[in-house]
Amino acid sequence: MTTIREQGGRLAALMPYDCWALLKGVQVGRVAWSRPQGPAVVPVNLTLLDGALWLRTSPGSELVREALDRPISIEVDEVDVATRSGWSVLVLGTAELVMSEDVPEHLHVLDVWPSGPHVAYVRVSPTQLTGRRLGAATHP
Amino acid sequence: MTTIREQGGRLAALMPYDCWALLKGVQVGRVAWSRPQGPAVVPVNLTLLDGALWLRTSPGSELVREALDRPISIEVDEVDVATRSGWSVLVLGTAELVMSEDVPEHLHVLDVWPSGPHVAYVRVSPTQLTGRRLGAATHP
Repeated sequence: MTTIREQGGRLAALMPYDCWALLKGVQVGRVAWSRPQGPAVVPVNLTLLDGALWLRTSPGSELVREALDRPISIEVDEVDVATRSGWSVLVLGTAELVMSEDVPEHLHVLDVWPSGPHVAYVRVSPTQLTGRRLGAATHP
Repeated sequence: MTTIREQGGRLAALMPYDCWALLKGVQVGRVAWSRPQGPAVVPVNLTLLDGALWLRTSPGSELVREALDRPISIEVDEVDVATRSGWSVLVLGTAELVMSEDVPEHLHVLDVWPSGPHVAYVRVSPTQLTGRRLGAATHP
């Protein structure tokens, strides 16, 4: 058998208040939706605005074709390899396509890194927020 | 309407060969499995060994309770906020619990950061590997 090192960091659940705070200023997360062969998990640019997460995609993207008006998840995390610590937040909600006339004017903060016609605005209003934080390991 | 900046980086699909190369030396990824309320997406320590991804978890974890012998996904990515570039790889497979006597001796490379009884070894043999790379944006 392999050697198991048990001196790891403590994993603690985050309260929703803390999850909201961590989502503020987020630029990148991963959107996931179920498929028969296993969930799709795709990095996307995100922004938190008025209690919802927004993203922009192409009208022909897999997200638009497969995931609209269905339960999806958005995962955001931060990992520090040096201290072996980090946190993650998982947002459950439904991906809703928002018509351009209903997109808030101040959503210009939502920059999308890849080029392309990202004219489809998707809003995810969280129905559940969970998260966990991993403290740095204590060395024996 | 919002101002749309179209000078983004180019998003290109990765070949399986490149995906394998990116998985080498990986320490952290996200395991995802379907649930009615939206996929679970959980960061985990991973290691690639002999063409399979391995992770260790607690026997009572949600992963063991909900995701064994079902299609799951593992997502690994690297994001550079400064240059707005990065890559991601998505592995599809089935999560298979491996009895301790069948765990390869040299799997001690699989360190788990959180403390706890991570005595359940899970192997995911990829059935599909896809990925994409986002090049740095060109400035106009």
